[in-house]
Amino acid sequence: MKHSAAVILSLALAVPAFAQDSNHGAGPVSGVRSLTYDEVRSVSPALEKYTQGPLLDGIWKRPGLSPRDRSIVTLAVLIARNQPIEMPYHFNLALDNGVKPREISEIITHLAFYSGWANAMSAVAVAKDIFAQRGIGADQLPAASPTLLPLDRATDDERAARVRQNAGPVSEGLAEYTNGVLFQDLWLRPDLAPRDRSLVTVTSLIANGQVEQMSYHLNRAMDSGLTREQASEVIAHVAFYAGWPTAFSAVPVAKAVFDARPK
Amino acid sequence: MKHSAAVILSLALAVPAFAQDSNHGAGPVSGVRSLTYDEVRSVSPALEKYTQGPLLDGIWKRPGLSPRDRSIVTLAVLIARNQPIEMPYHFNLALDNGVKPREISEIITHLAFYSGWANAMSAVAVAKDIFAQRGIGADQLPAASPTLLPLDRATDDERAARVRQNAGPVSEGLAEYTNGVLFQDLWLRPDLAPRDRSLVTVTSLIANGQVEQMSYHLNRAMDSGLTREQASEVIAHVAFYAGWPTAFSAVPVAKAVFDARPK
Amino acid sequence: MKHSAAVILSLALAVPAFAQDSNHGAGPVSGVRSLTYDEVRSVSPALEKYTQGPLLDGIWKRPGLSPRDRSIVTLAVLIARNQPIEMPYHFNLALDNGVKPREISEIITHLAFYSGWANAMSAVAVAKDIFAQRGIGADQLPAASPTLLPLDRATDDERAARVRQNAGPVSEGLAEYTNGVLFQDLWLRPDLAPRDRSLVTVTSLIANGQVEQMSYHLNRAMDSGLTREQASEVIAHVAFYAGWPTAFSAVPVAKAVFDARPK
Repeated sequence: MKHSAAVILSLALAVPAFAQDSNHGAGPVSGVRSLTYDEVRSVSPALEKYTQGPLLDGIWKRPGLSPRDRSIVTLAVLIARNQPIEMPYHFNLALDNGVKPREISEIITHLAFYSGWANAMSAVAVAKDIFAQRGIGADQLPAASPTLLPLDRATDDERAARVRQNAGPVSEGLAEYTNGVLFQDLWLRPDLAPRDRSLVTVTSLIANGQVEQMSYHLNRAMDSGLTREQASEVIAHVAFYAGWPTAFSAVPVAKAVFDARPK
Repeated sequence: MKHSAAVILSLALAVPAFAQDSNHGAGPVSGVRSLTYDEVRSVSPALEKYTQGPLLDGIWKRPGLSPRDRSIVTLAVLIARNQPIEMPYHFNLALDNGVKPREISEIITHLAFYSGWANAMSAVAVAKDIFAQRGIGADQLPAASPTLLPLDRATDDERAARVRQNAGPVSEGLAEYTNGVLFQDLWLRPDLAPRDRSLVTVTSLIANGQVEQMSYHLNRAMDSGLTREQASEVIAHVAFYAGWPTAFSAVPVAKAVFDARPK
Repeated sequence: MKHSAAVILSLALAVPAFAQDSNHGAGPVSGVRSLTYDEVRSVSPALEKYTQGPLLDGIWKRPGLSPRDRSIVTLAVLIARNQPIEMPYHFNLALDNGVKPREISEIITHLAFYSGWANAMSAVAVAKDIFAQRGIGADQLPAASPTLLPLDRATDDERAARVRQNAGPVSEGLAEYTNGVLFQDLWLRPDLAPRDRSLVTVTSLIANGQVEQMSYHLNRAMDSGLTREQASEVIAHVAFYAGWPTAFSAVPVAKAVFDARPK
């Protein structure tokens, strides 16, 4: 993490730009703009202090979760909560921290399904400008239809049967897309490692207070290599970006998952 | 559903425009701008594929819920989650799919109460431009104070008593407005059919994860004519627009409602 | 509350402005723009009616919660739900209703922790312009590191032990920041009274449907002087700004708190 840049840019705001002429179809859709520390201080000297201290010099530097992972978690929170205002800085920081363009591309696509289509589109509107500024072209992006990772048929048959049994009688369509499009296609796309895809999913569930689905996905994340220490740090990191109550609501769910797993 | 138009326009983004001069009061407050498929592809070829495939050629074409109903559901999700970015396309698509301007007007007003005043105002900022572009004038809008639908006094007395009993001792004001303004005024406005008003309400509850109120409103929707098959499709449709976890959280609630109703 | 102004301005929308040149770092980041009643009427004559009636002439004028407190509650809802669109009007109204600039500054900082960093940054982007327009300078803002209020050591030791016991084994980082930064620093900042800080916290929990943490914070608010009548009115007021379902989800939690407290 390039920290001196971080201090300046941590307050980068992407403000949606406008179409000067609403008839033309290909003008800019997002502009990038930084709030300076002077501006933050003009409303809250304390917020400047907490940004530089506990946030940038604190949680971001804690061991237990790498800067790269913290960037993935932060992007997942911002996309899942539809907050373009901090995306330009964090897309840039993520790339600086080693998150690949193809991984960012997959994170956005994944969250179309896990947090809604409009969330993904808002993220695209910002990401395309960052990609253009950094000269990131098609050769660095995942194919639309790549060779998928192998499916662990036995495990997935069980999972699919559970979806058919639980969701099927209520919404056949939901069960069908869940099995066919999500778990037998999206989750098998190779350009985001299963462990990272799970990290994005768990983060988005915590950030949006969707604890019902958290046990399954936290277990899946840990089965794919997320350590207990990393999961603990995710919860603390999300507290800053999605608010303390979301983190506290995740605590009992994580505890139950941790306790039930073999040591 | 005009599908060739849909393919081009499905990525329409409304980007809030700005007041060039913050002192003048009547300038434009929203601009309309489309993300082209090229732009989406510049970040995620996969997202383009999923948009054209499972979303536009998939869920939107499933039988069991008409394009008109799917448009109502989609608008309700976008307004309830405050996502203007996809509203211009979907206001236009809704009108193309047969949703009347007076119905859109009522949907926005209804969701002021069910998802918050600012959500409705954001929707107005976009809708007014679409209405202007399509020449939709006051003659196509509901009156501020129309003749209300008849109130089923016996049923409503019971409902009102329950609100007074449950909410009254905690918040007299909440109970009063719920009975006087919501159920004995808003819900009786004639320009959105009770079944459609319930569809909007149930959708907004699912999209925002507010399952506590879902049983009552899903039952009310089905009492007003929403079929079980339609309700099932609503859940699958909302999955795409509000994210998979919201749909899955709705499943057990819908199951309990379905199971308890006479076949 | 200056009501004639309110009628005109109640529909004020802050539309995020843009950076004309994305390279310069200190241009404007927000513009202010009002929706006129004519514009609202062009989409929904009913919404205009409900805004002028039940909202501005109704809930805002009910006794039991002062206009100042209603302004604090409204700001907390708008910041916690990240809705800049109505912030300019409500920052101005809050100042007119007697909320001090230093209190607004603290509300924003407090909600960085309770609703996420990006929420606070969006609020800063709007507030800085309002402060500039009204000539509010550094002398009216809280110091970054003021002398803190005294800590009630016995009560806080108990609270801190509970956090260490519940959250500690799951996320040591979360427990550490909760005790060190939130309760032994943020909550002791003197420029927002403990009762008002609790009012902001409870409001944000209700507005975001985070009822798990509500009991603790409602009790804390009432221990600091929030009356039962005021709490009742908060719930009704939040119904308008965050939607009816959020208010109804708060009812049983508030009831349990009210019932368990000594009369």
